[in-house]
Amino acid sequence: MRLPSTILYFPLSLLLMAAASAAPQSKQQRKPEEKRAADSVALISPEVRSDHSVTFRFRAPNAQQVNLALEGAEPEAMRKDDQGVWSITTSPLVPDYYGYSFVADGVRLIDPSNPSLTPNLLSMSSAVHVPGSLSLPWEVNDVPHGEIHHHFYKSAAAHDDRDYYVYTPPKYDATAKQSYPVLYLLHGYSDDASGWTAVGHANVILDNLIAQGKAKPMIVVMPLGYGTMKFVLQGWDSWSHADLRDKNFKLFTEALLTEVMPRVESEYRITKDRNARAIAGLSMGGSESLLTGLNNLDKFSWVGAFSSGGIPDDFQKDFPSLDVKANQQLHLLWIACGTEDHLITVNRNLRGWLTTKGVKHADIETPGMHTWMVWRRNLAEFAGQLFR
Amino acid sequence: MRLPSTILYFPLSLLLMAAASAAPQSKQQRKPEEKRAADSVALISPEVRSDHSVTFRFRAPNAQQVNLALEGAEPEAMRKDDQGVWSITTSPLVPDYYGYSFVADGVRLIDPSNPSLTPNLLSMSSAVHVPGSLSLPWEVNDVPHGEIHHHFYKSAAAHDDRDYYVYTPPKYDATAKQSYPVLYLLHGYSDDASGWTAVGHANVILDNLIAQGKAKPMIVVMPLGYGTMKFVLQGWDSWSHADLRDKNFKLFTEALLTEVMPRVESEYRITKDRNARAIAGLSMGGSESLLTGLNNLDKFSWVGAFSSGGIPDDFQKDFPSLDVKANQQLHLLWIACGTEDHLITVNRNLRGWLTTKGVKHADIETPGMHTWMVWRRNLAEFAGQLFR
Repeated sequence: MRLPSTILYFPLSLLLMAAASAAPQSKQQRKPEEKRAADSVALISPEVRSDHSVTFRFRAPNAQQVNLALEGAEPEAMRKDDQGVWSITTSPLVPDYYGYSFVADGVRLIDPSNPSLTPNLLSMSSAVHVPGSLSLPWEVNDVPHGEIHHHFYKSAAAHDDRDYYVYTPPKYDATAKQSYPVLYLLHGYSDDASGWTAVGHANVILDNLIAQGKAKPMIVVMPLGYGTMKFVLQGWDSWSHADLRDKNFKLFTEALLTEVMPRVESEYRITKDRNARAIAGLSMGGSESLLTGLNNLDKFSWVGAFSSGGIPDDFQKDFPSLDVKANQQLHLLWIACGTEDHLITVNRNLRGWLTTKGVKHADIETPGMHTWMVWRRNLAEFAGQLFR
Repeated sequence: MRLPSTILYFPLSLLLMAAASAAPQSKQQRKPEEKRAADSVALISPEVRSDHSVTFRFRAPNAQQVNLALEGAEPEAMRKDDQGVWSITTSPLVPDYYGYSFVADGVRLIDPSNPSLTPNLLSMSSAVHVPGSLSLPWEVNDVPHGEIHHHFYKSAAAHDDRDYYVYTPPKYDATAKQSYPVLYLLHGYSDDASGWTAVGHANVILDNLIAQGKAKPMIVVMPLGYGTMKFVLQGWDSWSHADLRDKNFKLFTEALLTEVMPRVESEYRITKDRNARAIAGLSMGGSESLLTGLNNLDKFSWVGAFSSGGIPDDFQKDFPSLDVKANQQLHLLWIACGTEDHLITVNRNLRGWLTTKGVKHADIETPGMHTWMVWRRNLAEFAGQLFR
């Protein structure tokens, strides 16, 4: 699993498991005489060094300016050499997965030398893995692995064909009598249903937590997070249209409760009991977890919101019947946000409102911006508390 | 499923099912005053027109030359407007999925305006869907859909962590007594294990064939096609190293027969009988199907090779014990290649050699190059003949 100091080739897991890691090619792989001019495949990018610094390279001989846009950092200017190759080497990075792109004369581009991607409906990026200790929750360990299931169906609520993903834990046996608790795990705006596995590495995180006894074996259902695809395909301006936004949230809840939930409860050995049912999500998915979870306490008793956003501050309107009685139904209401996230204020406001209503909740503030680095850690911490 | 003439938003299936379709944004989606300078998201690319012509657009104000590289066609020069946007409109295309990239001053880039991709370990491309008749095997129909399962395991043969995908047909029930025949379906060089679903739309093709009664319900296993990842991570030069190439094929067969096959036969309701076991693949995977299948006739009785290549013409060395007796064991040996494929000669040589050995086989030559357009049709034709 670990990178050798002399990188001849990369362990497959880093390349393929979840399709979001880096696949640098080493300099040893191509002799200089084999180097073809203007062949981007020959460039090594990203190159992760043993000190966790990373060199990014991009050939664009006629570009006037190329910046590196690295997840969680300000854009930085790259420098061009006399071969037309722009490059930059970062300072040592905290081990993690990072999304990045090159902004060439104002246009965001993925790294053509790197097959690892962060899928996204509005702006894809490349992905680089800076490997760290195997104790990090998203590092692939030599432990039993769960399985990811990809389902397709026609949605009556959303009037489209759509998909959802399901993680089953190691040793899950559809023919056994044992049933499992379930976590509905929701992605953010512009992600698709693959986000939590392809970018969030939720399956690896659960594999590790379960192997260490830090989380109960559970089924994780990852639906498509849009009530109407128009809401995302029209882009960020959608948020300024209250009708469309409200319709999106309403139809999402309807698709989840009347379509996805009955399907997975018939397809999988899921315990049909509110005490064994959790809902959590990031950003838009955090708001959807609150809206769907807190307004349906007969169905959910564990609710998590990671960097939630996108709903106005009029909490009384969104949660009209929420009051102190919820404390008898909620085993956990876990509200987390990074302190450098622009959504920290609305999250503090929400927690303040919950306090005035007498609704118990966990206040989680961690270092970090509006990034997957925060949400992977959120998931690892939240999942460990569920169903206990 | 069909594109409305006024495209307000696209059906989700085109966007998300198999992650390889086009997601053009309509002009209606952004008002002119909202257009941000140098914002590639605002560009509409690709734009599929009702006559099946496609306009591609790419902002690169300082590039000297930008070509469109469209799957199955020669590169074509794009033209720049005074806003720095390069564009080209194709003649009407045959309805299908097409991979494409922009080659800007010699560097292959994916389309930053299009979230749909063709995953590949050596050269990713963007993907565009030119929708056609619902009778085309890869068009999503309103029929029951199978499920795609993604598995992860540590390989002793290949010394790495790796993955495989499994398609189960609609109504597959792990708890039922019914068992299913199995097709091992192998991708080509530079693809990863997701290739046949993400690019080949094998799940959609099987869904449609099964719904129409044109194929028997079957399980399709799609393993990673490398015996050693070094073979692909070192790039195309690997093929000139006979030792590495032979090692790759040998270890692939070992991983398939001793690891993947026992796993799926214990995980799924698969009929454990050579009469119910097929193997087929494209390009490198075609050669692997021949090497693994024809040298293990005790295990396989249906073998398909689509545009196979990568093994030398010394067939006697590769298939030392193959002779006329194979006709009693083989229900089908199906050898296909596009007539414009550079591998047509080696395929004709192979078929000639089989004829001299008295081994019956189907000679399939179709129009086409070394492209997924050929292989999707190959799969639809081959799968319909299996297990009858």
